[in-house]
Amino acid sequence: MEKPYVIGIDVGGTNSVVGIVDKRGQILISGSIKTAKHAKVEDYLDELTELINDLIEQTTTKAQIKGIGAGTPNGNYFTGSIEFAPNLNWKGVIPFAQMLEDRVGIPVALTNDANAAAIGEMTYGAARGMKDFIVITLGTGVGSGIVVNGQLVYGHDGFAGELGHVIMRRHNGRLCGCGRTGCLEAYSSATGVARTAREYLELRPDAQTRLRNIPMDDITSKDVFDAAMTGDEMAKEIFRFTGEMLGEAFADFVAFSSPEAIILFGGLSKAGDMIMNPIRESMEKNLLNIYKNKVKLMFSELKESDAAVLGASALGWEVK
Amino acid sequence: MEKPYVIGIDVGGTNSVVGIVDKRGQILISGSIKTAKHAKVEDYLDELTELINDLIEQTTTKAQIKGIGAGTPNGNYFTGSIEFAPNLNWKGVIPFAQMLEDRVGIPVALTNDANAAAIGEMTYGAARGMKDFIVITLGTGVGSGIVVNGQLVYGHDGFAGELGHVIMRRHNGRLCGCGRTGCLEAYSSATGVARTAREYLELRPDAQTRLRNIPMDDITSKDVFDAAMTGDEMAKEIFRFTGEMLGEAFADFVAFSSPEAIILFGGLSKAGDMIMNPIRESMEKNLLNIYKNKVKLMFSELKESDAAVLGASALGWEVK
Repeated sequence: MEKPYVIGIDVGGTNSVVGIVDKRGQILISGSIKTAKHAKVEDYLDELTELINDLIEQTTTKAQIKGIGAGTPNGNYFTGSIEFAPNLNWKGVIPFAQMLEDRVGIPVALTNDANAAAIGEMTYGAARGMKDFIVITLGTGVGSGIVVNGQLVYGHDGFAGELGHVIMRRHNGRLCGCGRTGCLEAYSSATGVARTAREYLELRPDAQTRLRNIPMDDITSKDVFDAAMTGDEMAKEIFRFTGEMLGEAFADFVAFSSPEAIILFGGLSKAGDMIMNPIRESMEKNLLNIYKNKVKLMFSELKESDAAVLGASALGWEVK
Repeated sequence: MEKPYVIGIDVGGTNSVVGIVDKRGQILISGSIKTAKHAKVEDYLDELTELINDLIEQTTTKAQIKGIGAGTPNGNYFTGSIEFAPNLNWKGVIPFAQMLEDRVGIPVALTNDANAAAIGEMTYGAARGMKDFIVITLGTGVGSGIVVNGQLVYGHDGFAGELGHVIMRRHNGRLCGCGRTGCLEAYSSATGVARTAREYLELRPDAQTRLRNIPMDDITSKDVFDAAMTGDEMAKEIFRFTGEMLGEAFADFVAFSSPEAIILFGGLSKAGDMIMNPIRESMEKNLLNIYKNKVKLMFSELKESDAAVLGASALGWEVK
């Protein structure tokens, strides 16, 4: 009989969340530790192992766990390593999957957060039954997980799917965290929304907006959302600009893999229609004729608080 | 025992070429008819069937042919139809595969020209053994065939891989044949090269160049190539511009599928280093760090005159 459970681990820059998950995507139990607390990855893994063993003990036995899936920054599925993650304490290449497997005694597979989200949508969420779709994660950055012919696209080196770093503005584009300019992520992430707000405030000193009540450097995408919800024109325009840029990018993505759906995931997607309407309009306007009115735009169906762990856990079913 | 031969058909706007091909990619015999001669597709297919039967009779028997693969403009692998091909006489949706199969009595599969090229490279050419690569066809237009995890990317609707129509210049871009502006194809196809030449000649009335010896409206990419080979500075710059644009586009393609190689195919690729050097330089300059110095840039290894038929024929091995 197939083992009935998997473990999902979401390694974030701040917290690491662990959950034991069943076949229907129910989280039986979960817990978390601080990722940044440990300077050495060995110490972190020791604490993580303790938590995992503890969660297993409270619910089932190791023999019932099929595998562990971890979603990590810069996680490479092929090597099982975290490679040069900019937002973690541990530098260089960390053979994370092997190190954790040695400690826990259960096979571990690893991928990056956005790929984990895509596997999660396919296994438990909005993409059940789909063979071709793209998940776009709109958080601090813009990430992507691409599925083609029912398989995640890892590419030759395990690093495929960096759609936050396609170039949307080739000249005079915004500086991106990656060191280049004009990337989608520099505009259409949560931080991109805040940058757009600061840009608009500076360029239009006479425009009236609630956003002026906030010290410019403190403005977040949440502030822009709150202002837009009260009908603030500038705030609504910021979301329109953000969505239009995403729609332009999506039209190019469709020319690549012609997916059945593009699924939005992560913080910014909470803006709902405020971001979805301009995305849809702009994507349709920019699509090559043969693709028009074919591509579904959807929000993730995974519960926000559980999504990262569920996505990672789905990888646990595939571990060999 | 498996049947030893397949038939490849390259349906071009002008000629349709048919070849009988063995497992090593040798063309035993080939022949052609005029595509544009027939206003009705039925008449065209009757003549094509006659040619096919004739070629088979001269070399083998129908029982020895595993399948027929056809590469056609706007060919849809899923439906077996040619759908709204702008450069053919037959309008609307033509159930080409079924109609040919009914006439010849051998199963027929169909795809577009660029996908056929990709299958050809994987089966007989530069991409043997590769699981992730992209073929870019540089002809009158710019086409693409994308392979991920060893499988051609058809997408949800069979129309994936229109990389000639990603947007390279979002504002004030050149008008493209697709009706939109700024597409890669409007710049980096053979016709794009000729347009760049006319643009340069108009913008720089004082620049000395051999290209002025040709009536402006008659300039072709071949003329620009010939001039560049004699050291003409403007002609060389036109190829540099063309290659730089391709390199920028390739850097975005890599962020999508992280391929082992990008393979150039078709007329413009004959320009050799003159186009490859600026592509390589520009691609590496524009790549996200994690991809730098990883992606091979190659020319097709299929003999130009045979390539289209070989590519199409490779599909014949997969017919069910």
